[in-house]
Amino acid sequence: MGLIGPEEMAAAFDTLEKARTVVIATHIDPDGDAVGSALGLAGLLSKRGKEVAVYDRDPVPYNYKFLPGAETVSDRLPESCDLLCLLDCSSRERAGEKLAAWRGAAKSLCIDHHLTAATEADINLIYPEASATGELIYELALALDPDFGADVAVNLYTAILTDTGSFRYSNASPAAFAAAGDLVRRGVNPWDVTQQVYESHPLARIKLLALVLETLEISPSGQAASVTVTREMFAATGSNSEFTDGMINYPRSIAGVEVAFMVRETGDNEYKISFRSRGRVNVAELAAEYGGGGHHNAAGCRMRGTLAEINRRVFSLIEERLGSAS
Amino acid sequence: MGLIGPEEMAAAFDTLEKARTVVIATHIDPDGDAVGSALGLAGLLSKRGKEVAVYDRDPVPYNYKFLPGAETVSDRLPESCDLLCLLDCSSRERAGEKLAAWRGAAKSLCIDHHLTAATEADINLIYPEASATGELIYELALALDPDFGADVAVNLYTAILTDTGSFRYSNASPAAFAAAGDLVRRGVNPWDVTQQVYESHPLARIKLLALVLETLEISPSGQAASVTVTREMFAATGSNSEFTDGMINYPRSIAGVEVAFMVRETGDNEYKISFRSRGRVNVAELAAEYGGGGHHNAAGCRMRGTLAEINRRVFSLIEERLGSAS
Repeated sequence: MGLIGPEEMAAAFDTLEKARTVVIATHIDPDGDAVGSALGLAGLLSKRGKEVAVYDRDPVPYNYKFLPGAETVSDRLPESCDLLCLLDCSSRERAGEKLAAWRGAAKSLCIDHHLTAATEADINLIYPEASATGELIYELALALDPDFGADVAVNLYTAILTDTGSFRYSNASPAAFAAAGDLVRRGVNPWDVTQQVYESHPLARIKLLALVLETLEISPSGQAASVTVTREMFAATGSNSEFTDGMINYPRSIAGVEVAFMVRETGDNEYKISFRSRGRVNVAELAAEYGGGGHHNAAGCRMRGTLAEINRRVFSLIEERLGSAS
Repeated sequence: MGLIGPEEMAAAFDTLEKARTVVIATHIDPDGDAVGSALGLAGLLSKRGKEVAVYDRDPVPYNYKFLPGAETVSDRLPESCDLLCLLDCSSRERAGEKLAAWRGAAKSLCIDHHLTAATEADINLIYPEASATGELIYELALALDPDFGADVAVNLYTAILTDTGSFRYSNASPAAFAAAGDLVRRGVNPWDVTQQVYESHPLARIKLLALVLETLEISPSGQAASVTVTREMFAATGSNSEFTDGMINYPRSIAGVEVAFMVRETGDNEYKISFRSRGRVNVAELAAEYGGGGHHNAAGCRMRGTLAEINRRVFSLIEERLGSAS
């Protein structure tokens, strides 16, 4: 049924059972899948009497602070432990320099759903077919503790919910829906989670959104659209770059728009550009021309110049590619 | 397993099988559940050789026009038919005056998930526990044609997706998730549906949203928030009241806000007020004071006065109730 093969499951189960002290680490700038997976696994292991520490270089974002155990996440590492579990990334570098340099773990287990070549851990459960790392932890949970309760469930549900974009992306697979349904059966209230994850914005975010939407520009063809965020807007609304999360969805959501981008001011004449494509244009290629990178439908890069120059440049780059893609 | 009991299922099955000509009607201002349920059932019945007409007083909203069969929805009624299927509402009045006055059907079958006392049809499948009428049609589909394909599936998926708010509301039940997972397995691509339903906004809608967000007001306690839409904004952006759908979610999504409302200008000194509550305040009671109505967490009413008067009045009404509710 599940993605994790019987041998891999046995190896992971055995390794987890033998460890007495465990560090669970996940990537920098943690998202819902990172936090939810880490806390879900921590809950399972704590119940089995293990001493567990959850490490992240960065703090838990405000909208995930409600997750059971969120207050235990810290940027402190013990001197040593029996096992390091690296979740939602497959290299220690993605968890920050401190973890990359740390040599305190006797053994390591990596659980991830990102496509990768790196398999630096002793045991690797890497399944790009999984909707979220949380889906893999869910499979593990069924093996470790079939009767796991609502606290673990809400962590894993949030992981799957957020990485599938509220079950809207193409990774919303039958397995993702099956896991979500079972987690709701175990006591998760979808509306409670929604209110915390998607409806607990600081007032400053809505004020910033109002300013950002005013900057909407659309190309003459109607196929490219942009929004802009300046440092002045952050100052005027008391917000910061964390609050821009998801705002690029607005230009992308316009009928006919194939490629959207957001230009965010990071310094004097310095900007970060984020791209989103509906599929016809590979924005990873586009970003790569400026030393950036990403995926086919989501990528980013940095540029120097004035805002007007950059907007003009990016619009014409996109229109060129739309011309050759059609 | 399902909600529809074996006797009700047998009666519905038998009635549908015996009918040769069927009119499927749904409520005015149709939403995703209305359109998806109607077209899903139409697809199932057409395949079984029945002559099917889908009736709605109002046109299919722009973001549901992609649904297979959407072009067949019309406001024309035949002189007569063997069976009228009334979906997603339980009274003919909810489908408009024309259908209420029509006497062309020999028999009637109602399928709905709204709490109601009215059961005016010959056979009634009314299950408030269902996440959506689409979930009930899904159960029926498994009985009528277990191998139903992607066209029916995408209609039923859209019905469930939209009525659960993208699986975010408390009606996102294990059964809703199970149905969605099975529909994806039958060929629905969640991302394709998302792009059509949630990401095909007219440019005018984003422009209107920018103006509406600028009107954001929040009470000194931070527990009540409002936005305003004027006729001038519609004119300036080339939009209309259909485009305000979902905009009340923005004030509601602010951390700490218990009750949000949207004031929409409908005429000279005439306004429509929509309320959303997180649960502590019963906004149906609040709306009822001004002759309106609705549910505990979502209600509406009309008021006369200047915009400033109305805002002041509603803010103080809410603060009063927040005081007595806490």
